[in-house]
Amino acid sequence: MNRPAYALGIDFGTESGRALLLDLRTGEEAAVSEVRYAHGVIDRELPSTGGQLPPDWALQDPDDWVTVLETAIPAVLEQVPSAREAVVGLGVDFTSCTVLPVTAEGAPLCTLEAFAGHRHAWPKLWKHHAAQPIADRLNEVALTRNESFLSRYGGRISSEWYFPKLIELWRDDRAVYDACDGFIEATDWIVWFLTGNELRNSCTAGYKAMWSPQEGLPSADYFEAAYPGFTQPQEKLGTEFSPLGTCAGTLRAHLAARLGLPDGVAVAVGNVDSFVSVPGAGVEQAGTFVMVVGTSICDLVIDHDEVRLPGVTGVVRDGILPGFYGYEAGQAAVGDMLAWFLQTLAPPDAEYVTLERAAAAIAPGATGLVALDWWNGNRTILADANLSGVIVGLTLQTTREQIYRALLESVAFGNRRIIENFEEYGLNLNEIIACGGIAEKSPLTMQLLADTSGLRVSVPDSIQIPARGAALFGAVAAGAFPDISSAISATRPQIARSYAPDADARAIYDQVYAVYRPLYELLGRSNVELLHALKRIHTERIAS
Amino acid sequence: MNRPAYALGIDFGTESGRALLLDLRTGEEAAVSEVRYAHGVIDRELPSTGGQLPPDWALQDPDDWVTVLETAIPAVLEQVPSAREAVVGLGVDFTSCTVLPVTAEGAPLCTLEAFAGHRHAWPKLWKHHAAQPIADRLNEVALTRNESFLSRYGGRISSEWYFPKLIELWRDDRAVYDACDGFIEATDWIVWFLTGNELRNSCTAGYKAMWSPQEGLPSADYFEAAYPGFTQPQEKLGTEFSPLGTCAGTLRAHLAARLGLPDGVAVAVGNVDSFVSVPGAGVEQAGTFVMVVGTSICDLVIDHDEVRLPGVTGVVRDGILPGFYGYEAGQAAVGDMLAWFLQTLAPPDAEYVTLERAAAAIAPGATGLVALDWWNGNRTILADANLSGVIVGLTLQTTREQIYRALLESVAFGNRRIIENFEEYGLNLNEIIACGGIAEKSPLTMQLLADTSGLRVSVPDSIQIPARGAALFGAVAAGAFPDISSAISATRPQIARSYAPDADARAIYDQVYAVYRPLYELLGRSNVELLHALKRIHTERIAS
Repeated sequence: MNRPAYALGIDFGTESGRALLLDLRTGEEAAVSEVRYAHGVIDRELPSTGGQLPPDWALQDPDDWVTVLETAIPAVLEQVPSAREAVVGLGVDFTSCTVLPVTAEGAPLCTLEAFAGHRHAWPKLWKHHAAQPIADRLNEVALTRNESFLSRYGGRISSEWYFPKLIELWRDDRAVYDACDGFIEATDWIVWFLTGNELRNSCTAGYKAMWSPQEGLPSADYFEAAYPGFTQPQEKLGTEFSPLGTCAGTLRAHLAARLGLPDGVAVAVGNVDSFVSVPGAGVEQAGTFVMVVGTSICDLVIDHDEVRLPGVTGVVRDGILPGFYGYEAGQAAVGDMLAWFLQTLAPPDAEYVTLERAAAAIAPGATGLVALDWWNGNRTILADANLSGVIVGLTLQTTREQIYRALLESVAFGNRRIIENFEEYGLNLNEIIACGGIAEKSPLTMQLLADTSGLRVSVPDSIQIPARGAALFGAVAAGAFPDISSAISATRPQIARSYAPDADARAIYDQVYAVYRPLYELLGRSNVELLHALKRIHTERIAS
Repeated sequence: MNRPAYALGIDFGTESGRALLLDLRTGEEAAVSEVRYAHGVIDRELPSTGGQLPPDWALQDPDDWVTVLETAIPAVLEQVPSAREAVVGLGVDFTSCTVLPVTAEGAPLCTLEAFAGHRHAWPKLWKHHAAQPIADRLNEVALTRNESFLSRYGGRISSEWYFPKLIELWRDDRAVYDACDGFIEATDWIVWFLTGNELRNSCTAGYKAMWSPQEGLPSADYFEAAYPGFTQPQEKLGTEFSPLGTCAGTLRAHLAARLGLPDGVAVAVGNVDSFVSVPGAGVEQAGTFVMVVGTSICDLVIDHDEVRLPGVTGVVRDGILPGFYGYEAGQAAVGDMLAWFLQTLAPPDAEYVTLERAAAAIAPGATGLVALDWWNGNRTILADANLSGVIVGLTLQTTREQIYRALLESVAFGNRRIIENFEEYGLNLNEIIACGGIAEKSPLTMQLLADTSGLRVSVPDSIQIPARGAALFGAVAAGAFPDISSAISATRPQIARSYAPDADARAIYDQVYAVYRPLYELLGRSNVELLHALKRIHTERIAS
């Protein structure tokens, strides 16, 4: 690549969105601009009417997303004026499954006067959990019918996914359901908004809508069995899905002018913030365990083979990088478990940095504690939202700092369990690449991941990993690279910090893990009725 | 009883001693005086030399005890001058097994210049735990030899008891061992000091020195097998033990004069602070579960039958009240577990009263938590010091107050488990009498004891329950009552507060107990190696 070339990566998170201007010759992050959503997460009242939302609802406002585009893109171009004419491509990543009903022209129903007062007309954020009973029903029927798609999702689908949210709309607001032409992932809607072309990406279809290139969607019979009358699963989703890296078109001319971009900027089909972290972190090969460590942990692995293994969130062909099977796993509470500790059990003036320092001064094995990090249930490999957190080993000598360290260790042990599960099913892993807020802020957690797993942990020198990945797909869509693999090799970020397993610590953690592992099995499997009963009693009591 | 009559109860605790002047006609507490020990618990350095003490050592200074007698007794007489001439008897209770080497004349060896610098010459306090390895050895050999005495102590003897402490002395300081004529419970030493007569009481012989009226002491063969050369178990203990309520003699004349007491005040043989709480609380019948709820819980039951049941601390004929088998059980961490919470996990300015108020506002079952109160191991029924505390059910919504309530509930569930154990072996219980600091300070704990057990909990209107019991034995020794039973009926304290089980709460706690009970079995028995391994790893790591 001789001439200057840039790609834009637009990363839409839960509370804010950001634009990254990536130098495709060097992989350098030329400029970044972040914009918070004016409405944030809408989980109390509907902005249009002030009407109160039921529990477990979480919406967003599409105007907030457009504001990100219209503010952050000009802002990064402003910072590097020379790049403006050299921008060749743009990629988008978004939280998922964040999904909205739209007209045939692509207008979100919530922006139409007739529907603005309907809460189901608004985009449902990934963490909208009100469709849990629908997911339960879908799981139950799938199990009864022995549906083959289930094994691609570790035996269980999530209430956060596409069909629970769509059936919720169908069941609870038929007017909106009938009025919308499509029910579309936000990432695809953004691409449509940018290019004027409606393309659905194959990644979210695979991970969130139970589609596979070989098997298509679950059958109409299956849906009919679960929800009589709901017989057109493809009606609002479509049946054509574009592989990642596909060029969805070019930026619409009037929009390019408004944003200050040249004509002909190629836009890639939409992507998802977690999955796009794999290319963003510079990973293009099997054997690397990519962890996005933030509020929760998202684990990503690519491999040439398809293996159906328990507890995995999903395995999708071409779902992360073309030519590979993409695997997603994870831990349900990490950053938010530590935040819980800080808010609930730490002194009023405590900060993470002081807690981390005190925890780091404690030797491996010296807490006397083992915790199971199930504060938010277990995502992988038990896939059980009705589990809850456990601490064992408490004594009169136990300190607050020991408990904090035990929580960090519980994250590391949970990770070891997941890695073991991959390896037991033949997916060998030889290194960890970790990114996300905790990878930046907690060297101790990184060291614990290394010491418990026996794998080196490397942290890339970037806090814009998802936006980097999105930008790379934009670059591929523009033809700046022949394929995503070349794009990754050309722009791989530096490794900022690397954590080698300490042999002594590892030997001690092997002993502690010999306690952790049976405890995990006892409370998570063989006697799982105990934690389930506790959750049930708790739910009944707070409701009464 | 027509004429005024008083008895003195002298109660020696861990940090202080107190004298109670009890009106035998009314049961009224006429005066109380408390004196703190100048040396408190000696666990850092020997007062005589400043030499540092090893870990797990805990000593006391006998001069501190004498100061209690010489200060507190005149003080109560000062408060009620009219009572002075009407004092007929005196009883003593003491912590146990608190034990010291003495000369044939009754002089503590630590008061002799030649031995003051020997740490083994000092009284070893009940919570001196340095003889744990000796207790382990004694248990191991007793098990191998299938010694019959073991089943009287729930299958296990404690490092706090008489022989571990005596063998420690024999093994580690033969000069002191050889120089002492007796190794005597502090309660018996006080009585000797008061009367000039050395009488050993049958209660501590039974509960702490493995003696029984039928079987005597464990055999010399047994001790020889465990500690070759230690073949005279009776050498420093004697073989004659006086039943509770026996008159040990009268107050020595010069001492009576100095204390301001009349001649001829009868002194009962020594007693123990926990056991004497049974008469002190007004209990003289089978079927009442007496709980002394303080730093830990001591449970006391009397029954006409002897049952050997697992996990009980001891069953001793006439050990609590003459004519009954006395049973001791307990929970190892209660007040100190709550103090741990306050110091470790509560805000800096928190107080019990605010924690209790917040915990009381939470409904039964609404914490979503279950805890096992094994912060200090489990005393009854598992009798396992290597267990540790457990909390399950933690979520991102769990509050500090819910955790605190879960700890209180864990005490109540642990108590229910003990009561069930008694009942499974045929000892039926129909009410709870609770005394001690927590009975005074935590109405919520009392209500939880009622709600989980289904038994009414009554709290006597006195904070001097042990001293009352001691005084009653003094009164019996003086002949003021024909027997302890009459003394109890005549002076029974009022019930200050009574807690009836709430039917709704009980039904919910039955559900939670259905989680607690299997968890207890899983972690305390069937998979006990998990907590044991954790303790072992912890001990190794902090030692390295």
